[in-house]
Order: sequence, then C-alpha cells, then structure tokens
Amino acid sequence: MGAVIPGIVVPPEESFNGLLGLAVTECDEHSARAELAVRRELLQPWGIVHGGVFATIAESLASWATATVVVPSGQAAMGLSNATSFLRPLRAGTIHALATRRHRGRTTWVWDVDMSDDEGRLCATSRVTIAVRPFEGAAGADAGEAGA
Amino acid sequence: MGAVIPGIVVPPEESFNGLLGLAVTECDEHSARAELAVRRELLQPWGIVHGGVFATIAESLASWATATVVVPSGQAAMGLSNATSFLRPLRAGTIHALATRRHRGRTTWVWDVDMSDDEGRLCATSRVTIAVRPFEGAAGADAGEAGA
Amino acid sequence: MGAVIPGIVVPPEESFNGLLGLAVTECDEHSARAELAVRRELLQPWGIVHGGVFATIAESLASWATATVVVPSGQAAMGLSNATSFLRPLRAGTIHALATRRHRGRTTWVWDVDMSDDEGRLCATSRVTIAVRPFEGAAGADAGEAGA
Amino acid sequence: MGAVIPGIVVPPEESFNGLLGLAVTECDEHSARAELAVRRELLQPWGIVHGGVFATIAESLASWATATVVVPSGQAAMGLSNATSFLRPLRAGTIHALATRRHRGRTTWVWDVDMSDDEGRLCATSRVTIAVRPFEGAAGADAGEAGA
Repeated sequence: MGAVIPGIVVPPEESFNGLLGLAVTECDEHSARAELAVRRELLQPWGIVHGGVFATIAESLASWATATVVVPSGQAAMGLSNATSFLRPLRAGTIHALATRRHRGRTTWVWDVDMSDDEGRLCATSRVTIAVRPFEGAAGADAGEAGA
Repeated sequence: MGAVIPGIVVPPEESFNGLLGLAVTECDEHSARAELAVRRELLQPWGIVHGGVFATIAESLASWATATVVVPSGQAAMGLSNATSFLRPLRAGTIHALATRRHRGRTTWVWDVDMSDDEGRLCATSRVTIAVRPFEGAAGADAGEAGA
Repeated sequence: MGAVIPGIVVPPEESFNGLLGLAVTECDEHSARAELAVRRELLQPWGIVHGGVFATIAESLASWATATVVVPSGQAAMGLSNATSFLRPLRAGTIHALATRRHRGRTTWVWDVDMSDDEGRLCATSRVTIAVRPFEGAAGADAGEAGA
Repeated sequence: MGAVIPGIVVPPEESFNGLLGLAVTECDEHSARAELAVRRELLQPWGIVHGGVFATIAESLASWATATVVVPSGQAAMGLSNATSFLRPLRAGTIHALATRRHRGRTTWVWDVDMSDDEGRLCATSRVTIAVRPFEGAAGADAGEAGA
C-alpha cells in the first residue's frame, strides 16, 4: 500500500489492517491482492478463521483499490455494503485474496473478492459495494451514510 | 460469554473477539448484545470505524448465540453468509450491538444485527445466516463449507 | 398505489407489478404493505412460490415507498441491491408483505421487507437498498447504475 | 429446459418462468444460460426493467442447474438466499444471463449470475445460494426453510 493518498489520518499499519496484519501486495483500479497469515488470534473459538476476518480483507481491498483512483480526484470511497459467503473452513496457512472490479459507476463501484487457501481452494467470497462521494460530505460528522 | 460450550479450542479472550476487545453482555437463543469501545486500531485510514469491525461483531453475536443452543446438542454453528450494510460513519465512542433471531430452521438460523452509536443512531446492520450441522462434518478438515 | 407520482411512463397495472397481481395496500415514507394471492403461475416447477416473486415484492415496495417522497422533489429512486433470504416454502394462500424503512440517507434508503403466510409465519425477508439520484442522470440512457 | 427431472408438479412453461417468458438455453452442473426479451410488462413504472426480473432470472438458473444434478439423486434444490446488485438500467432489447457455479458443498451450492444487455454491458449480477436437502423434508409442508 505504497500509494500516497490524500486525507489519511491513520497510517495503514496503525489501522485495523495493521491489527490484522494484512499485506496488500497489488492494487490498482481494476484489481487488488492481499495476503494474511492465519494465526491464533484470527480464529473463532472452534479453531477456524473468524468470518469477520474474511469480510475485513474484502472490505479493505475494495475500499483501498477504489480510493487509489477517486481520492486523488477529490472524492471519498466508503463501504456501502459487504456480502460475504463462507464456503470452506480454514485453520492454518495463508489467506490469499484477489479483488476484481465488476462495475465502475458514477456513485458506486462493485467488487468481487475471492479468498483462497494455500491449495487454491475458495474459502470465502465477498461482494463489496463502495460508495463514491464528494469528500466533504462523506467525511463530515453529519454524513448520512458511510462505512469503511 | 460465560456459558460453558463444548468443543472450544481457543478461549474467546484469545480469539478474534479478544483481539477486537468485544464484550458480549447478553446472549440467549433469541437475542444477544455486545459492546465495543472504538479505538485507533479499529479505524480505517480515513479515521472511521472499519467496515470489517461491524461485520465481525455481527458474525460473532449470531454465531455465539446459535452455538449456545446447538453445540450442547451435538451440532456445530458456523457462518454461511454475512451481509452488512454501512449506514453512518463512526469515529469515536462505543458500538452497541443487538442481535435478534429472525428464523430458526433445522439447518439454518437467520439473525439481524443492528449496531448503533452512543446516541442510538443506527450505524450498520447485518443479516447473518448460520448453518447448523452435525459437529463432526462441520469441524472436519474436509468440510465442504463453513465460516465463523 | 393511488399516489400521483411524476415521470411514470408505464401505469403500475401494466408494469411487472401488474403481471404479478401485486396489490399495494399501504404506502408512506416509513413503511408499506402489499398482498399477493398465490396462483399456479407464481410457482416454480416443484410447486412452491418462486423466490423471484418474493424478491419482486420487496423491490416494488421499497422502490415505490421511496419514490413517493423523492420523486415529487425531483429525484429518482432506483434499486441498488436486493438481498432476499428464503425461510419457509409457501404453496398456497396469500403473501403478506410489510416494508419498514431502516435508514434514510442523502443518497441511499435502506428497507427491510418481511413476507409472511396467512398464519403470520415469516417465509422470506429482504434487505433492499434504494439509490436516490437526480432524476436526469438516473433516467438517462448513459446512467452508470440503476435497477428497479 | 429439456432435462427430465423427477418431482416436477408445475411444467416450467406454466410456472413463473413461463409467465416471464424465460428461455433457458444451456444448463449443466457448472453453468447455465438464459435469455429474456424485454417487454412492457417486465418494466417498473419509470420504464426500466424491474429489479425483480433480474432476481428471478438468477434464482431460476441457479436452482435449475443445481436441480439437474441433485434431484435425480433424491435431493431437492431450493433457494436459500439471492443477493442481486443492479448496475445499469435496461429499457429494451434482450437480457443475456450466464450462471457460473462458484461452490459445490454438501449442503449448499453457490452461483454467480451475470446479466448483460445486447452490447454485453453488465446490467445486474446476483449471488445465489441453493440449499441441497433430502427431498422429503425439503418439500414437506412443515419444512423449516426453503425458497425457489
């Protein structure tokens, strides 16, 4: 995540992505990739990766990839919805995530994010809709909607 | 989360909920509540709570509340899908989450989870579907599906 | 659906709602109700109401209820997403639908729509997000997004 | 839809697909295609294709393609959830739908369904989860869950 994007108030490594340990390895306006090594504190009590981890990875990739384009042009990118399906439990190894943009509209971008294990088996898949809004309204305390 | 539930291999405080700092304050088979104080490492780079935090809270409440009933009867509760809508950005204070069960089927339970700020304004809402499966298959390494 | 709303080019009774036979019985900006009598041509091949019927009812109620407010003020209301969960099969009788607004933002409204059978049992539930946009852009042939 | 599948009680041409006029042109366990010519009674009042039409197409393709495999083996395929995103308004021409299976689990199959216009532009996309259940329970009047 080496891109210089305006308006950042929390360095990525100190943000929620940093808490997870998410490493974004590729990112442009069409697709993005990230990896996350599974560790004990990413599991739920029965020993599999918590569903929130998958949702977080998807949200981060879709938001960041949209932001790299729209923020420099004076807009904000914020999550509108995140629908994640959990397909296969994961206990160890590395999560490999690939985000692919499905739609670029004037006010929303839609991304699909596939998350696989070390053997390439699909473990979870997310559809994330990112709202693109004028920066002021989006960031204001009185914004009517917004997410991540 | 004082209930004694079989099969736990990661104590909740050492699991992903512990990493977040999520405090489940009420939990039965019909509803559940949790609170989470916003802190810097739960934010995304533009200073609002990361969407993955909301998805995680919802997933945890729905899974845990289902598990309290089905796990003692020899079944597993695992997330099948989590659809979270982000309605209002949150920068500080405490997230107040209320999970309400909408459906109890033989193989799936459906929950709605509302997450509000300190003024009671709805910030995010999730629909979480939890699969209820025989414990062995669900936990096995070769399980065909499962989540959190 | 007696409200006079600008810009209508297909009378509701000749639109998809008419094809279904949907009767909207109440509609304001906070909630809306409709009923639909199950008949053979609303079923799928195994004899239960087709899931698309439930999704359609939800989409119609959420869109129409949003439109009653925003269209007279010069905006368009169009579906952005519709997530429907199917909970109980229905074979006969009447579908009773209740839409409740969960969020009114500047650019999106979010509705929950519950659909029950004659005994009041929940058969399906939808979360519908409606985009509110300036009328011209929304209706234009080059609109970047839009739905129902 | 020439496959002979057991248990059908409503011929497809007399079912909801028939009411729409949906033509399934290809269907196997990995993918399926359908076409639907837009006509006035498939529109919503503002002259664009009703969102429920897209949701219905997706539900039909995913259900039917799953059923071709599981029904002959004594199981039922019923919709569990349908999440449709509306990306571009459509006023005329033909809807071209392609369903692709993303996951085949023991109890759920997950499909992505893309729906495009005559120029190949993506107008709507759905994620449909189909439950695979023993036939008796699924079809019974007391089934705890089910859809289309």
